[in-house]
Amino acid sequence: MTWHLARRTALMNPSSIREILKVTERPGIISLAGGLPCAEAFPVDAVREASARVLRDAPYASLQYASSEGLPELREWVAEHLRGAGMCVDASQVLITTGSQQGLDLLGKVLVDAGSRVAVESPTYLGALQAFNVFEPEWISVACDDDGPVPEGLVSAQGARLLYALPNFQNPSGRCIGAARREALATAARAVGLPIVEDNPYGELWYDERPPVPLAAHWPEGVAYLGSFSKVLAPGLRLGYVVAPAALGSKLLQAKQAADLHTPGFNQRIVLDILRTDLLSHHLNAMRARYKSQRDAMADALRLHFPDSCRWETPRGGMFFWVQLPAGVDARALLPHAVERGVAFVPGEAFYAGRSNPATMRLSFVTTTPQQIDRGVRMLADALKTMA
Amino acid sequence: MTWHLARRTALMNPSSIREILKVTERPGIISLAGGLPCAEAFPVDAVREASARVLRDAPYASLQYASSEGLPELREWVAEHLRGAGMCVDASQVLITTGSQQGLDLLGKVLVDAGSRVAVESPTYLGALQAFNVFEPEWISVACDDDGPVPEGLVSAQGARLLYALPNFQNPSGRCIGAARREALATAARAVGLPIVEDNPYGELWYDERPPVPLAAHWPEGVAYLGSFSKVLAPGLRLGYVVAPAALGSKLLQAKQAADLHTPGFNQRIVLDILRTDLLSHHLNAMRARYKSQRDAMADALRLHFPDSCRWETPRGGMFFWVQLPAGVDARALLPHAVERGVAFVPGEAFYAGRSNPATMRLSFVTTTPQQIDRGVRMLADALKTMA
Repeated sequence: MTWHLARRTALMNPSSIREILKVTERPGIISLAGGLPCAEAFPVDAVREASARVLRDAPYASLQYASSEGLPELREWVAEHLRGAGMCVDASQVLITTGSQQGLDLLGKVLVDAGSRVAVESPTYLGALQAFNVFEPEWISVACDDDGPVPEGLVSAQGARLLYALPNFQNPSGRCIGAARREALATAARAVGLPIVEDNPYGELWYDERPPVPLAAHWPEGVAYLGSFSKVLAPGLRLGYVVAPAALGSKLLQAKQAADLHTPGFNQRIVLDILRTDLLSHHLNAMRARYKSQRDAMADALRLHFPDSCRWETPRGGMFFWVQLPAGVDARALLPHAVERGVAFVPGEAFYAGRSNPATMRLSFVTTTPQQIDRGVRMLADALKTMA
Repeated sequence: MTWHLARRTALMNPSSIREILKVTERPGIISLAGGLPCAEAFPVDAVREASARVLRDAPYASLQYASSEGLPELREWVAEHLRGAGMCVDASQVLITTGSQQGLDLLGKVLVDAGSRVAVESPTYLGALQAFNVFEPEWISVACDDDGPVPEGLVSAQGARLLYALPNFQNPSGRCIGAARREALATAARAVGLPIVEDNPYGELWYDERPPVPLAAHWPEGVAYLGSFSKVLAPGLRLGYVVAPAALGSKLLQAKQAADLHTPGFNQRIVLDILRTDLLSHHLNAMRARYKSQRDAMADALRLHFPDSCRWETPRGGMFFWVQLPAGVDARALLPHAVERGVAFVPGEAFYAGRSNPATMRLSFVTTTPQQIDRGVRMLADALKTMA
C-alpha cells in the first residue's frame, strides 16, 4: 500500500535540534543546547493549589468542551496585561492557543498560500520556519544588523504576506530591538503595506531593563501579536495567545476550531487562577534574579575562556548567547569535538531561512548552574582550539 | 491596512451548529442539539486525585516541554488497548494529539494537497469537513446505505487521497457498520488503493453489544486510526491519538511538532494515572447504563409522538438519533417553530460534503433526562405538524 503524501511534506524535516538534544541526554554532558526553561523555577505549589481549586469550584466546566476563543476571563486578563505594556487591545481580539506555536500554525493557515512570500529575520526562530513551511511559502530573509531588521531593507519584502519578527531577546540571537528601531520598523512596514507577526515569548525575562513597547503598539491594525505562558509559568501546560486585528479575527477562530476545537479548559482555568493571586510578579522577580546570575556567569566565562576572534553581545534578557566564530569555522564540525569533551550547543545553521552562517552557535544559560556554565564554556573553548 | 488572506480562508466558515447552540443556551430550552457528553458523568474525583498524584510524583516533568510523540507510557497503553480491540499496533505507531480533532488536522496536512480528492460518507462528521477544508480538497461523497459506505461505491473514489469513515455510532447518523460490511469495505478499499482514515470517538459507548473490530484490523497498512479520551473520560483535557502505518509516521510527527510542539504533558500524565487505576471499566459501565436509559427514553418518545411519515433507526451506541423527515420538509425551516415551543435540534444539512438532504435532523440524547427527552420530542412532533 503506497500512501500519496501531500507536496508540503517534502518541506517538512526532522528537527536537527532534536537530534542534538538526544546527545545531550547522555549522562555527564553539560548541555548549553537546550531551549527549555529551568524546571526548578516552575511554580509547582501554585499549580497544585490552583488545580485543586479549579476542580473544586468548576469541575464540570473545566472538563467539558469549551469555546474555541478561550475562557473569557483569561482573554480579558491578557488584554489588560497587554494594555499595561502599551498596546491597544480589546479582549475580543484575544484568541487562546495551545502554546504560541499553535498561533504560528493558525496564522500560516490564514495568511500563507503555496508560493506566497514570507519574510523573516536572519537568523530567526526555527519553530516559526517549521510552522510556516507547512504552507509552502517562498522565504525572504530581510537585512538585519545588531539592532534587528533594517527598516530600509523592508522594501525587499514588499508584497510578502507577513514579516515574522521576534523583537525581545530573540531566539537564537538574544538581541532586543531598541525603541527607535521599533518605531522606524513599524513606519517602514506600514509604508510598504507589509503586515507583521510579532512573537514575544521572552519579553518578561529581562535582566537589566524592561524592553521597549511592542511593534504592535506602533501599528495596531498591521501587527498580529503572539504571547505565551510557557516561559513565565510552565511550558507543559501549553498555553499561549494570538492578538489579531479585527480583519483576521473570524478566520483565525475558524482555523482554531478546525485545528483542535479549543485549548484545554482545565489548563486555562489553572493559569487564570494563578494570575488572580499575586504570585506572578514575585515569581517573575525570582526567575529574573536566577536567570540574570546565570547570564552573568556565561558572560564572565566567555570573556575569560573564549578567544578574541569570537564575537558576541551579552543579551539583556531571554535565554541565549549567540556567538560568531572566526570566519571559516563550521559549528557543525565543532560539535563532535565539544561533545567528546562533555559539552553540547546548537550550531547556528538551523536558524536561517536562506543562506546560513555556519560560523555561529547558540548557547543556552538557563538550565545549568554558574559552575557548570564556566566548565562548559571552558571545554567549548578547548574544543575550538582544535579547529584553528 | 489590508491583510492578504490565504485562498483557503474562503472555504473556512463559521459553524452553523455554533449559531444553533447559542439559541439553546436560552433558559428553559430543552436542547437535543448539543454534541457534548454529559458533564455529570465526568470522573471528577478521579481527575482530582490523579492531578494531585502527578504534581506530587512528577511535578517538573509534567510542567516542562515534552516529546512531540507523547508520553511513552501513554502510547504503550493505547497500543495495548487497541491490540485488545483486535488491531495490530506497536507503541511506536501511536502519536498523542490535542484531541482527535488535531489528528484530522495533521492527517490533512500530510495527505491533502489543494485540489486533491477526499472521500467521505454521506452524511459525515462536520468537524472532519472543517479540518480537511483547510487543505482545499475536492470532496467526493461515496454511496452509503443503512450499513455504511457501499463497497461497490468505492471505485468512484479511486485516486482519492483518503476515505474518511466513522464506523462506530457515527456522528450524526448513529449507525454502526456491521462486521461483514467492514471486511468488505477494507477489501474494496485495498483493491482500489484507497487509504482510509478511521475515526472512533464513540466506540466505547455501546449499549447493546460491543461493535465489530475496526477497519484497521482488516487492513493495518492502509488505515490511519483516530481515537480519543473525550467521550470516555473528559473532553476538556483535549486528549486523543492517531495510530498511523509506518509510511506516515515521521511526517505526522513533524506536522505535530510544527502545530503545537506537543500535547500538554500534565494532561497526558493525569489520564495515564487514571488509566492505571481500575476506574475506566467501572466508569464506562456506569456511563453505558446512563446513556442507554436516555437512548431508550428517546426511542420510546419518538415511537410515541412522531408520525409514521418519519424514519429513524434506534442507534446501538453513541449519542445521536438521526431522523428522516417526510420528503419536502426542510429541517432548517422547522427549527424556529421548535425553538418557539422550547426545544432545539441540529438540522442535518450541515453534515454533508456534497448534495445535502434537508429533510434530516440530529437529536442528541445524552445531556437531557428521560423526562426532558419525552417533553422535547413531544414539542418537536408538535412543531412538525405546522410543516404539513
